[in-house]
Amino acid sequence: MADSFAELGFAKLDLSRKDRTGMPETIYCAGKTKEQLAKILKTFAEQKIAVLGTRCSQEQADFVKTEGLVIEYDECSKTLVLKSGTMAHLKGRIAVCTGGTADLPVAEEAARTAEFFGAKVDRFYDVGVAGIHRLFAKLEEIRKAEVIIAVAGMEGALAGVLAGLVEAPVIAVPTSVGYGASFNGLSALLTMLNSCAEGISVVNIDNGFGAAVTACKILRRIK
Amino acid sequence: MADSFAELGFAKLDLSRKDRTGMPETIYCAGKTKEQLAKILKTFAEQKIAVLGTRCSQEQADFVKTEGLVIEYDECSKTLVLKSGTMAHLKGRIAVCTGGTADLPVAEEAARTAEFFGAKVDRFYDVGVAGIHRLFAKLEEIRKAEVIIAVAGMEGALAGVLAGLVEAPVIAVPTSVGYGASFNGLSALLTMLNSCAEGISVVNIDNGFGAAVTACKILRRIK
Amino acid sequence: MADSFAELGFAKLDLSRKDRTGMPETIYCAGKTKEQLAKILKTFAEQKIAVLGTRCSQEQADFVKTEGLVIEYDECSKTLVLKSGTMAHLKGRIAVCTGGTADLPVAEEAARTAEFFGAKVDRFYDVGVAGIHRLFAKLEEIRKAEVIIAVAGMEGALAGVLAGLVEAPVIAVPTSVGYGASFNGLSALLTMLNSCAEGISVVNIDNGFGAAVTACKILRRIK
Amino acid sequence: MADSFAELGFAKLDLSRKDRTGMPETIYCAGKTKEQLAKILKTFAEQKIAVLGTRCSQEQADFVKTEGLVIEYDECSKTLVLKSGTMAHLKGRIAVCTGGTADLPVAEEAARTAEFFGAKVDRFYDVGVAGIHRLFAKLEEIRKAEVIIAVAGMEGALAGVLAGLVEAPVIAVPTSVGYGASFNGLSALLTMLNSCAEGISVVNIDNGFGAAVTACKILRRIK
Amino acid sequence: MADSFAELGFAKLDLSRKDRTGMPETIYCAGKTKEQLAKILKTFAEQKIAVLGTRCSQEQADFVKTEGLVIEYDECSKTLVLKSGTMAHLKGRIAVCTGGTADLPVAEEAARTAEFFGAKVDRFYDVGVAGIHRLFAKLEEIRKAEVIIAVAGMEGALAGVLAGLVEAPVIAVPTSVGYGASFNGLSALLTMLNSCAEGISVVNIDNGFGAAVTACKILRRIK
Amino acid sequence: MADSFAELGFAKLDLSRKDRTGMPETIYCAGKTKEQLAKILKTFAEQKIAVLGTRCSQEQADFVKTEGLVIEYDECSKTLVLKSGTMAHLKGRIAVCTGGTADLPVAEEAARTAEFFGAKVDRFYDVGVAGIHRLFAKLEEIRKAEVIIAVAGMEGALAGVLAGLVEAPVIAVPTSVGYGASFNGLSALLTMLNSCAEGISVVNIDNGFGAAVTACKILRRIK
Amino acid sequence: MADSFAELGFAKLDLSRKDRTGMPETIYCAGKTKEQLAKILKTFAEQKIAVLGTRCSQEQADFVKTEGLVIEYDECSKTLVLKSGTMAHLKGRIAVCTGGTADLPVAEEAARTAEFFGAKVDRFYDVGVAGIHRLFAKLEEIRKAEVIIAVAGMEGALAGVLAGLVEAPVIAVPTSVGYGASFNGLSALLTMLNSCAEGISVVNIDNGFGAAVTACKILRRIK
Amino acid sequence: MADSFAELGFAKLDLSRKDRTGMPETIYCAGKTKEQLAKILKTFAEQKIAVLGTRCSQEQADFVKTEGLVIEYDECSKTLVLKSGTMAHLKGRIAVCTGGTADLPVAEEAARTAEFFGAKVDRFYDVGVAGIHRLFAKLEEIRKAEVIIAVAGMEGALAGVLAGLVEAPVIAVPTSVGYGASFNGLSALLTMLNSCAEGISVVNIDNGFGAAVTACKILRRIK
Repeated sequence: MADSFAELGFAKLDLSRKDRTGMPETIYCAGKTKEQLAKILKTFAEQKIAVLGTRCSQEQADFVKTEGLVIEYDECSKTLVLKSGTMAHLKGRIAVCTGGTADLPVAEEAARTAEFFGAKVDRFYDVGVAGIHRLFAKLEEIRKAEVIIAVAGMEGALAGVLAGLVEAPVIAVPTSVGYGASFNGLSALLTMLNSCAEGISVVNIDNGFGAAVTACKILRRIK
Repeated sequence: MADSFAELGFAKLDLSRKDRTGMPETIYCAGKTKEQLAKILKTFAEQKIAVLGTRCSQEQADFVKTEGLVIEYDECSKTLVLKSGTMAHLKGRIAVCTGGTADLPVAEEAARTAEFFGAKVDRFYDVGVAGIHRLFAKLEEIRKAEVIIAVAGMEGALAGVLAGLVEAPVIAVPTSVGYGASFNGLSALLTMLNSCAEGISVVNIDNGFGAAVTACKILRRIK
Repeated sequence: MADSFAELGFAKLDLSRKDRTGMPETIYCAGKTKEQLAKILKTFAEQKIAVLGTRCSQEQADFVKTEGLVIEYDECSKTLVLKSGTMAHLKGRIAVCTGGTADLPVAEEAARTAEFFGAKVDRFYDVGVAGIHRLFAKLEEIRKAEVIIAVAGMEGALAGVLAGLVEAPVIAVPTSVGYGASFNGLSALLTMLNSCAEGISVVNIDNGFGAAVTACKILRRIK
Repeated sequence: MADSFAELGFAKLDLSRKDRTGMPETIYCAGKTKEQLAKILKTFAEQKIAVLGTRCSQEQADFVKTEGLVIEYDECSKTLVLKSGTMAHLKGRIAVCTGGTADLPVAEEAARTAEFFGAKVDRFYDVGVAGIHRLFAKLEEIRKAEVIIAVAGMEGALAGVLAGLVEAPVIAVPTSVGYGASFNGLSALLTMLNSCAEGISVVNIDNGFGAAVTACKILRRIK
Repeated sequence: MADSFAELGFAKLDLSRKDRTGMPETIYCAGKTKEQLAKILKTFAEQKIAVLGTRCSQEQADFVKTEGLVIEYDECSKTLVLKSGTMAHLKGRIAVCTGGTADLPVAEEAARTAEFFGAKVDRFYDVGVAGIHRLFAKLEEIRKAEVIIAVAGMEGALAGVLAGLVEAPVIAVPTSVGYGASFNGLSALLTMLNSCAEGISVVNIDNGFGAAVTACKILRRIK
Repeated sequence: MADSFAELGFAKLDLSRKDRTGMPETIYCAGKTKEQLAKILKTFAEQKIAVLGTRCSQEQADFVKTEGLVIEYDECSKTLVLKSGTMAHLKGRIAVCTGGTADLPVAEEAARTAEFFGAKVDRFYDVGVAGIHRLFAKLEEIRKAEVIIAVAGMEGALAGVLAGLVEAPVIAVPTSVGYGASFNGLSALLTMLNSCAEGISVVNIDNGFGAAVTACKILRRIK
Repeated sequence: MADSFAELGFAKLDLSRKDRTGMPETIYCAGKTKEQLAKILKTFAEQKIAVLGTRCSQEQADFVKTEGLVIEYDECSKTLVLKSGTMAHLKGRIAVCTGGTADLPVAEEAARTAEFFGAKVDRFYDVGVAGIHRLFAKLEEIRKAEVIIAVAGMEGALAGVLAGLVEAPVIAVPTSVGYGASFNGLSALLTMLNSCAEGISVVNIDNGFGAAVTACKILRRIK
Repeated sequence: MADSFAELGFAKLDLSRKDRTGMPETIYCAGKTKEQLAKILKTFAEQKIAVLGTRCSQEQADFVKTEGLVIEYDECSKTLVLKSGTMAHLKGRIAVCTGGTADLPVAEEAARTAEFFGAKVDRFYDVGVAGIHRLFAKLEEIRKAEVIIAVAGMEGALAGVLAGLVEAPVIAVPTSVGYGASFNGLSALLTMLNSCAEGISVVNIDNGFGAAVTACKILRRIK
């Protein structure tokens, strides 16, 4: 393993990751100071390495821009993209579906992560099971995807209903949307883990990023 | 409140309950010895009061029969009925729906309780959301009911999907069917409490009896 | 299903819902920007469709008014009403009872939702079981209702005591009122689910809205 | 502290406990072999020390008798008493109340423990809140007690209702009676801890013994 | 029950409580507006009824004073006292013990409540089991109390150790002091409920008030 | 959807499932009587439809054989196969890895399910992270798989370590192996959901079957 | 890493473990068939490698003996020892302390494991904090140990009290002894994790083996 | 025990602790007012006793400096050191390892506490199992330590992987780093308690201080 690292003191940057794993570089911005984030991004920019930042606050993004870095920031999903060179292109499409409008930030984190990794993404928002006719109206389009990401909070039933209707694997993302006995996403998490529909696997609560990475790893199987 | 009681030492029997509340007498058999159960049933039989027994084991039912009591026992739902005089008749129909075949004992407890209380019951079994076309095939019939009882374990999504498709109130019964992260019905319970479909209320895990009593109290509103 | 929708980009508005289900339109305001809320309300106002908004902040309500919309806002229950045309009228009465004064916001959400849906509501506040003589003083009046909504936090015993005293179905609403081992409403939720009184069903913690919708669906059975 | 012990190898017996604390000796029988139990009881019998055994199985009790020890065994409460010399007598009365008949074993453990410690006990069984008129019929008698032990499972509301109606301190014993969301007594435990009635304190689930000890320690304050 | 109430709209004030139960009036201030609190206190002041307020914020107390009411406010325990006429006097002493200095607010709520109810209180603070010699140095004094209130967070072992060393009943108050796996007091609560020392009963997390009320109800048994 | 069903009274058999979804038929045997299971299998055998049974007890399998059905039964994984016609063949390989020997039944359920669905499976058992050199010795072979199923109980760290070392997507199966604070698989489930390695998704505790179905749905993307 | 393995099909035996890590070989017997266990032990016996077996049932031990293996089996701790060659000897002493007699099996698992690994062990049983004078009577002896293992269930306070009284590090073992709110050892686990005494670290519930291994690893630091 | 205390009213300071236990004095600053903290530090400064303060806010540290006390404050770990006289020196080294950069504050609390107690500390940060080659690159250095402190949040697998690779005892510190199903550190805590690698013991979530104290108590065994 001939890896090259940049040692910044507070972090070790992995500069040969894409060569080694084929997956581009990403940064979890939460918990880092805005100065640390800027320093990390500059190091990658100098190496002409494209980077995706997730859980990035507006304040962090603003600071990074004032430091002269050219980034795209999306407020809804709290993602930041530092582009560089030719981006990857993956075969096949990913469908990102949400139960309600409140699940949008997580869905957009998934969608933008997948796009950064080179996937084509179709968005199907607000197709939750409480008004299931909305879902059926979109079903033919959803079925065109090679992988489906189902994002839902509260009861979280969307993933199971979808998996019973499509052939593609479904990656379920529970969200912390809800109140009371939703227990910050626990309800949706348990629902998804217990679905008796076939072909569902689940990621952490609100982890749109993780769902997208798994989906792209699946798309990379399409040779 | 001029109530009359029969004091059996180990229990106080309420002999004027039907006159006072309009609801027939019921016994929770679990935790009682077979001798106690027989003694209670005899007291009611002598007073010509019909009784429903729930959570009654085969062994209890057999003993009661050897004591000379004329009862009907259903093994699946573990219910026992001691008939007496004219039974009640309620207006309107109740639909009892289940997610899978493993939910049958709870569904039958609900159905037989409702029938004992005088309701007409239609059963729609094995219409869970993992194969949602089965549910749609029955939807017009289900919509004829004044109240719907939705029985489901594991992910428990049936109640929310139904409530989005019908006008009637839906009483949701989570079941302890499942394994692993179903946590003995907790998963289905949380799903049902968090449904964003309108008109759902929930009873305890495996409480088919309680759902039926509530449903019959609703039917009694139809004047 | 010939539904008409208004596609606002961030949400799909269901403009034919009342025709289809008989239930008026409602909006869950929490998690929406004040601009989104105003846009949604304007769309309904233009279509002459009455709307109820729940979990609406004072700030959202103020903004909506400055946008020229004529609404009624109630600070305690955080509900907003946009009236339009003739409102529905339901037969029968709903009794809304609370354990303590801290349960008022949830109780008022239930009461105002039911009134918006056309029900006549009687309020019985501060009749918790710790001073049970207060409850008995009101019992005859409470018994006049066709459906009872019991709102209580902390120990949550009100629903079970009430259900043992009345014939009508009781919809129990646990509240997050309390501290320590109330675990934000979990204690009251479990109490209500485990009540051995008959005819109780339960909705999510603090879900006054959901209780009212179920109650109104029951009133609609009274033909 | 000049204590005298009997060292049995598997346990240290405290032979001067009553002199030191005024409380008689007790043994928690569960988890001990029947031979160990017999050996312990013989040691106390030789020292003319009276002993109460709790959680004692029928099998343990039978073996102890075949070993020639004169004991009284109660199957319901699973308690065993080895009498010796003059028993204590405490001033004042304890009322032991239960919600349902299934709570009897725990209530009897409390009652028999209190009697062994010298208290006069009045039993009020099957007075749960689901049929609150049963409780009111007994209220004047219950009020004669200096301490009240309230034993209840499922919703566990009995303690709170009682505490609102009497002056005496109430010791609440949640029981593991119930199913589903009673979570083996957790529901009743939380209800009792969260009661807003004044003067309630709580012991472990099914701990009738502990409630009785506390009650007797209170009676010993009456000089 | 010939009770007199003052109906304030948002609350029903119980003006004959002391005559009926012997216990003075108390108010749980949290969740009330400062205007509501002032109005309640004025009503009692006009009736010459002494009142204790708990969980009262500095802001509430300041407002109440500007409204002309003569109160004593203690910042640490967040209690407020409105004196009136001759206060009660109870026989016997209560010992309030704490594990650490961070438990002080809860301990003081207990101590001041007990004093308001007429008890003599001895404070033994910072005598936790991690430095058990501090506890032993005070043991003789603690043994003079008729009732002991043990306040402790984190591991919560103080109550069990104390109960093994004294004859008096011990009322245990778990506190939410701690972090991580203390889970806001759950750890201390479970420790106290599971103590194998005899004579412990437990109240809700941080409920110094409830412990004091129970302690005073015990002191009232001393005739 | 022109589906054909066989209605057996206690279940609806889906006879056109493979045509519709491309996935063969499977039966969850637990909770069915041995007579029901035999009747279901006969129906499929008559239709020449291959079936996989999971969670099938030795007793169920023995009975089915005595009824004249030709099945293969594996005791370790509790799976049963009824072969019929030409089985499917999928491109690519699946690696099934386990942390310890106690995870074997779940791993074999996954492996045999995948083989029934047409996949080529390589088994890497007993390669848990406590002796990580065992894992490294097999790494090159594991990297040949298109999908990896990581089965582990107790700490459940295998999935995260693997995902950091391979390019393929990892489907994590927590098992209920362990004791104490493993809480029947909860520990492993949480570990897997929280892994910061990329490309992991998780199924229910002990759900080897579900992991295999998802893995096969991924293999079907390889065109 | 030049390790030698014996591949038994169902397990990989590590034959060079002691040379590599200095720690003797151990087997977790639970979950293995008695034939598998015998086969594993024979392999080690042939290699003249001493082995400790934990969680070994009487039935397993009996079978192993009938297969001609010379082992020592202890019923209380369910440990089995296959001796071979010269055993290790560690400097310093370990004190194993328990709260009650029911904790003995876990304490003996710890003690016998430590002895197998070469440590000198002093046992201090039944010194729980409910009768703290028993602990003080033994304190001087306990202080002679270099490491202390504190085994306790229920409230689990022993570890914290001990750590406040000694200089040596304390390894705390929560046990599943108890009932009700002990939640199978969760109560003792949380108590121990939250102790504010210094120098405590905790192992899994009932994990006497793990505590002993850690203690022996500490003794090996004494050069 | 001839201890000398300084009684400050709100706390009892233990001035002879180091003489008695060999461990220097420490203060848990959270929950103390800045004035109380300054007063405590002054008392120790006057007695020439060195003190470590943990969980100290920037605001507290600033105030203490303005009061004229000479302290060193570290913002990352929130520790404060008041030096005095000759500090202790312990034999052997401690390795502090972290899974990710977000675990740094907890790791630094451990490292600085250990240094204050006289230990030599080597830091190995950002060596989590998701990129396990980073850990292997440092392994030889880590193996030089006599005790290892493994700090990790989220999946928390670092401790188990390390313990399988080294001879020294591993003290595991779960951190509250993560989101969703990490449940504020519960996930990492359970992972660490369930590790099947040998020689791991665990402290409370985020308790870097406690891990360091235990590690130093182990170093003190090296004579």
